[in-house]
Amino acid sequence: MITDTQIEQWLREDVGHHDVTNQVPGETTGRLVAKESGVVAGLEAATAVFEYLDVSVTDRLKDGTAVKPGGELLQVVGGAREVLRGERVAVNIAGHASGIATQTREAVERARTESEDVAIAATRKTTPGLRGVEKRAVVAGGGDTHRLDLSHMVMVKDNHVAELGLEDAVERFQERTSFATKVEVEVGAVTDAPRAAEAGADIVLLDNMTPEQTQAAVSELVDYEGVLAEASGGITLADVPAYAATGVDVISMGSLTHSAPALDLSFRTGE
Amino acid sequence: MITDTQIEQWLREDVGHHDVTNQVPGETTGRLVAKESGVVAGLEAATAVFEYLDVSVTDRLKDGTAVKPGGELLQVVGGAREVLRGERVAVNIAGHASGIATQTREAVERARTESEDVAIAATRKTTPGLRGVEKRAVVAGGGDTHRLDLSHMVMVKDNHVAELGLEDAVERFQERTSFATKVEVEVGAVTDAPRAAEAGADIVLLDNMTPEQTQAAVSELVDYEGVLAEASGGITLADVPAYAATGVDVISMGSLTHSAPALDLSFRTGE
Amino acid sequence: MITDTQIEQWLREDVGHHDVTNQVPGETTGRLVAKESGVVAGLEAATAVFEYLDVSVTDRLKDGTAVKPGGELLQVVGGAREVLRGERVAVNIAGHASGIATQTREAVERARTESEDVAIAATRKTTPGLRGVEKRAVVAGGGDTHRLDLSHMVMVKDNHVAELGLEDAVERFQERTSFATKVEVEVGAVTDAPRAAEAGADIVLLDNMTPEQTQAAVSELVDYEGVLAEASGGITLADVPAYAATGVDVISMGSLTHSAPALDLSFRTGE
Amino acid sequence: MITDTQIEQWLREDVGHHDVTNQVPGETTGRLVAKESGVVAGLEAATAVFEYLDVSVTDRLKDGTAVKPGGELLQVVGGAREVLRGERVAVNIAGHASGIATQTREAVERARTESEDVAIAATRKTTPGLRGVEKRAVVAGGGDTHRLDLSHMVMVKDNHVAELGLEDAVERFQERTSFATKVEVEVGAVTDAPRAAEAGADIVLLDNMTPEQTQAAVSELVDYEGVLAEASGGITLADVPAYAATGVDVISMGSLTHSAPALDLSFRTGE
Amino acid sequence: MITDTQIEQWLREDVGHHDVTNQVPGETTGRLVAKESGVVAGLEAATAVFEYLDVSVTDRLKDGTAVKPGGELLQVVGGAREVLRGERVAVNIAGHASGIATQTREAVERARTESEDVAIAATRKTTPGLRGVEKRAVVAGGGDTHRLDLSHMVMVKDNHVAELGLEDAVERFQERTSFATKVEVEVGAVTDAPRAAEAGADIVLLDNMTPEQTQAAVSELVDYEGVLAEASGGITLADVPAYAATGVDVISMGSLTHSAPALDLSFRTGE
Amino acid sequence: MITDTQIEQWLREDVGHHDVTNQVPGETTGRLVAKESGVVAGLEAATAVFEYLDVSVTDRLKDGTAVKPGGELLQVVGGAREVLRGERVAVNIAGHASGIATQTREAVERARTESEDVAIAATRKTTPGLRGVEKRAVVAGGGDTHRLDLSHMVMVKDNHVAELGLEDAVERFQERTSFATKVEVEVGAVTDAPRAAEAGADIVLLDNMTPEQTQAAVSELVDYEGVLAEASGGITLADVPAYAATGVDVISMGSLTHSAPALDLSFRTGE
Repeated sequence: MITDTQIEQWLREDVGHHDVTNQVPGETTGRLVAKESGVVAGLEAATAVFEYLDVSVTDRLKDGTAVKPGGELLQVVGGAREVLRGERVAVNIAGHASGIATQTREAVERARTESEDVAIAATRKTTPGLRGVEKRAVVAGGGDTHRLDLSHMVMVKDNHVAELGLEDAVERFQERTSFATKVEVEVGAVTDAPRAAEAGADIVLLDNMTPEQTQAAVSELVDYEGVLAEASGGITLADVPAYAATGVDVISMGSLTHSAPALDLSFRTGE
Repeated sequence: MITDTQIEQWLREDVGHHDVTNQVPGETTGRLVAKESGVVAGLEAATAVFEYLDVSVTDRLKDGTAVKPGGELLQVVGGAREVLRGERVAVNIAGHASGIATQTREAVERARTESEDVAIAATRKTTPGLRGVEKRAVVAGGGDTHRLDLSHMVMVKDNHVAELGLEDAVERFQERTSFATKVEVEVGAVTDAPRAAEAGADIVLLDNMTPEQTQAAVSELVDYEGVLAEASGGITLADVPAYAATGVDVISMGSLTHSAPALDLSFRTGE
Repeated sequence: MITDTQIEQWLREDVGHHDVTNQVPGETTGRLVAKESGVVAGLEAATAVFEYLDVSVTDRLKDGTAVKPGGELLQVVGGAREVLRGERVAVNIAGHASGIATQTREAVERARTESEDVAIAATRKTTPGLRGVEKRAVVAGGGDTHRLDLSHMVMVKDNHVAELGLEDAVERFQERTSFATKVEVEVGAVTDAPRAAEAGADIVLLDNMTPEQTQAAVSELVDYEGVLAEASGGITLADVPAYAATGVDVISMGSLTHSAPALDLSFRTGE
Repeated sequence: MITDTQIEQWLREDVGHHDVTNQVPGETTGRLVAKESGVVAGLEAATAVFEYLDVSVTDRLKDGTAVKPGGELLQVVGGAREVLRGERVAVNIAGHASGIATQTREAVERARTESEDVAIAATRKTTPGLRGVEKRAVVAGGGDTHRLDLSHMVMVKDNHVAELGLEDAVERFQERTSFATKVEVEVGAVTDAPRAAEAGADIVLLDNMTPEQTQAAVSELVDYEGVLAEASGGITLADVPAYAATGVDVISMGSLTHSAPALDLSFRTGE
Repeated sequence: MITDTQIEQWLREDVGHHDVTNQVPGETTGRLVAKESGVVAGLEAATAVFEYLDVSVTDRLKDGTAVKPGGELLQVVGGAREVLRGERVAVNIAGHASGIATQTREAVERARTESEDVAIAATRKTTPGLRGVEKRAVVAGGGDTHRLDLSHMVMVKDNHVAELGLEDAVERFQERTSFATKVEVEVGAVTDAPRAAEAGADIVLLDNMTPEQTQAAVSELVDYEGVLAEASGGITLADVPAYAATGVDVISMGSLTHSAPALDLSFRTGE
Repeated sequence: MITDTQIEQWLREDVGHHDVTNQVPGETTGRLVAKESGVVAGLEAATAVFEYLDVSVTDRLKDGTAVKPGGELLQVVGGAREVLRGERVAVNIAGHASGIATQTREAVERARTESEDVAIAATRKTTPGLRGVEKRAVVAGGGDTHRLDLSHMVMVKDNHVAELGLEDAVERFQERTSFATKVEVEVGAVTDAPRAAEAGADIVLLDNMTPEQTQAAVSELVDYEGVLAEASGGITLADVPAYAATGVDVISMGSLTHSAPALDLSFRTGE
């Protein structure tokens, strides 16, 4: 959910105390246009920017739509001063989110070459302040949000296991966990995967394993119906097919949110 | 300036209402460590995250320092629960800012192959909510902030020129501009560069010109002492040397802030 | 997570612009004391109130501890003016949260007369602004948070089912749901319970059923391993044993958070 | 006054980062309906919730109106997604405030059996974050707000009296107090009541006295024209008539705001 | 009450995104010094500015103290960068508040030439965002806060009287007013003053009357014990003695807060 | 830029928790009217106050317009309750800003008696929280904003010079300064003025010099084309012509923002 308070912060940091260039009378229209191909996202946020400024968004693509160069994402009409105030922020947020959606779509397509249903998921490695925008951009690209925040799903991490032992760590966290919440257990060795499933994991996170190790771990989990396997740890776009071929249910990639280049967009007024 | 309100927003979006995994008693130490080579930045923000949680930062690198894999950026000590709450947000902001600093350093080094003093500058194409963090990361990488916000420097853009004519547009904006503020004029044709300087531009922005056109424009500006020339418009890392060789004073690149991949960092506790 | 911004709001609404009674020099101590028996909660929030005012909390009970009349929950030392500024807000938040914990404990104890492991859970019927405080108070009382927010667990409600049919509604929501998120399906008829489980529900919400209907529905779900049954809808403390005896996994009660009377606490200074 | 910032906080804590159930196209209507008898309040706040989401409130009862089961409090029309986002928060705030108004009305009616004009007043024992909403709910129920905040009225408390003596304490506070502000003095013994009045109290607070003691103190105050007497200290609904019969001017009850059960409301869409 | 959020706003608007002049290592001391004679105020706010930046305030005058040129108001020690960041904001707020206190002291002294006890009061004509700071500065100068906000005291204004008639307007507002709140009635004619008192006014506001009219109105109020008379309406410093001589209880002056020149202060570091 | 968050703060501090006087049904109109001659400013902020309350501003003067007594600045129409809630805050902010604009206009007119083009500029001595409003009010009065914040222009101050020497101080700051930012150097002696210009200052600040010294310094700067001279330091309205006659480019005066009396405005409803 985009709040007015966040929109204010975005606009305030870009406008400053006294902008002499935007003292333009009258009304204008504007269009947000793609300069390269990609998948659009963040248009709810861009719309919120304009609406905060009382500029109307008259048309917009649905997040997740593929665009080609020249494609229009958004049309606005409003006071010229307000349109000019909003345009840079709108381009920045939509370009950022669309870059993430585009990168996600690319990863999903690479995964599809080897697997019909493996999910491509984001992580908590998001840009501070933009958790929701980025997670929804991943969904727009065909990906899975994964954990939204620390309270959304319980993760039993390697340091918990190191301290308590795998079974005890899982047990302790399950006692504290709501019935509404899934429990994921991180393992670093193939043989720990079935132990985690046996202990009650809903999802087993296979951390920093090679595709071969991943495949071995997936085999060990085959008897645990309903338990999902997730591959994670520095997986790049190039690695996706190899992991997709292992039979894992989920491939998670921090790079979707922390390293996707922006989609090149421009804003054109008065045409 | 990083405010507590912004740190709160970053933590709140990551923690949620009830995190059962971080209910850990006692104190711990932690270290922020580079997993790849790069230039560090954003450590003031990472420090602010920990200090908001009453975790002490006992040592930290200066922004702009080059690190190698394994290099420590930051050390903390504090309540285990608080350290665990802060670590993801701290990694995210420092990784993001260090990615920008690293990319900037790379651009600067490429520019230095052809020019001793051309500046590599960022633009207003920053991630919403992170204007200050990103501009300071560019400085950490050896770059120039360029305009901090719309009120910092006046930019006479192509649409202003189209409406009023170059000379009249510059005159109108100069009347409204404080003596404390520079005026930059955007031109798209080589012949407009000296007209802009003549009209009183402090900086002439050579927009979307080839290196050849840029060089021609720079020649035209040679007689206007104190007037700077800036090249801009989709310039990539690979293009930097060619533009640096033209004699421009500034090369500005949106990609420094909107498309730099994060620097890979990890946080290790209790070691 | 309690933020400084929220603490400010609480203090600001209680202090106003110019409080002449709290102009007291020097230091003082203070104690938060129970005037009746109950289970304490909200002490993290009460601590945050005092710490915002630079008053030290020198000792405090753990949330979830049972107290008797006269029992001390919290001790502070600090500037007399600051202690006096914080006391009313601290009493209000701790009394409110402890009331919820006490009510939850009572419900859990009643449930234990008929079932060893049925969970007593809260709902989203919380006091606006206090979602986290109240959910954690329920946990302090031995209850389960249930859904923390709309994004935490997917709920397929009666109106979704009415529109799309049960199986299609579940299918549509599952397509949109992350692997990290559970799906609960609300049913109003006993015969719909196994249909919901068959369609893939992680939890079946038996809404507004009598204990007899609930028991019948639970029987129908027995073959769906891992699928949980939840009873909900105006269940009072008096009703708890009857529902606990049906074999449901979860009994959820809005009254835990929206109608629990405050625990009677007082704050004593300078003793 | 309900601010947008507070509405945001309420919605944000309920929605989270990515709610897949509310992705519903089109418009809908909705109605807030009572499931039990009571007095409505908080409808200004509920309206503000919907209006923040650009949902129109087409009709609503006046705060203070009595409703019966099935009675409509509020009607809305707007985007289905926005209506669904707002409904839970609107029900929560209106149910909470209406519970307070209903409890207040009950106390007032009990008081009227013995006194035509004794006021039933709230205290500062309100739920943090909801001071204004709760005080206005008390007014909707026919009660008196009492002190809105520490700056609204000066209260000379038992600890001030213990430290300085009654007359000196009153004198010291009166020197500091604006002509615009009343001064209330708390006394614990019948004989202190006329001393407080003599010293200049506008109101004498008879703290933790029995009805008999209260009546005796009221008699002592009869000669001090314009000085009001207030009974306070753990007074329950059942105690109200006995205190009302003593002739006090005000009976204040913390339970009105900290322990009133919510009024049972539901929200129905699309009918 | 000064909140961190407000301090942040003050600092943020002064610092901007990247301040290159304040990159100073090491610690420093600093002193806030008067450059002219006056009465100090706003030092709590100035202290809060420095403490937000983790700069310690080691000594400070009490608000309301008279200073001569060269007098020290405040001493600090802390990081040089932080001291430099805070100094301008601290000077601005303390200079503003001290200007108000000084002007108030001047008005009080002029009043004392004619009356021993007439109060000099501020109004609601305060600078937006600084209500509390300014009201407390008036108190520091020896004045009276008057109404802190619309909810603090009820004011029956000329437009209410015009609509309903004086007696009915007072009656209607008294019905709605808490026993904790005073009622002031504005009158424009001498003969209306006793009518307002008779109707139950706690204070009668004599609006825009000459000193002669004011004196006449005060005479009419002599029989209403406990009812106060206030003179208001464009009263300047020069007018104060004439009004003070009329026997009114209160003289209120908007100029105290909206037109007092700042007290000239400077901040000296490292001495 | 005025944000909703700031408007909320202004309204909240004036309204409080429960205002019984503004419970007025129906619609009304209102007019903001000048009671004395002056130059208007702050009408964007006043408009934002009303619009936050959903009151329409149907007409308003342009900031910078001169008004005479009785002149209308602003007309509104809206709910009577909302108009009454907004009026005091709107008057306060517009009166404050118009006072600054009026004072600035007066200074400009006095300067014009001796110089056609000297600029009258504000400083950073603004009221905390109102930087933007006050700087724009100075512009409305015909003045120059000067530095908007610490990041807008670099100022090499006397303490920097004392520590490093003039030339080194300028060099050090220029290295850190963006090409987009001007550098001003403060000097206290006439002979330092040309040194500062030689070292690269864009502007030389002649601090606390007499008009004679100022004129001498201006003469020394005559050969440095493009370098501006600014006179500063306790310059009053009466001093303006003498400084204007020296040939300086800029006269800056803190009093414009910290000591201008408010312009006397009133708000009239329902006429």
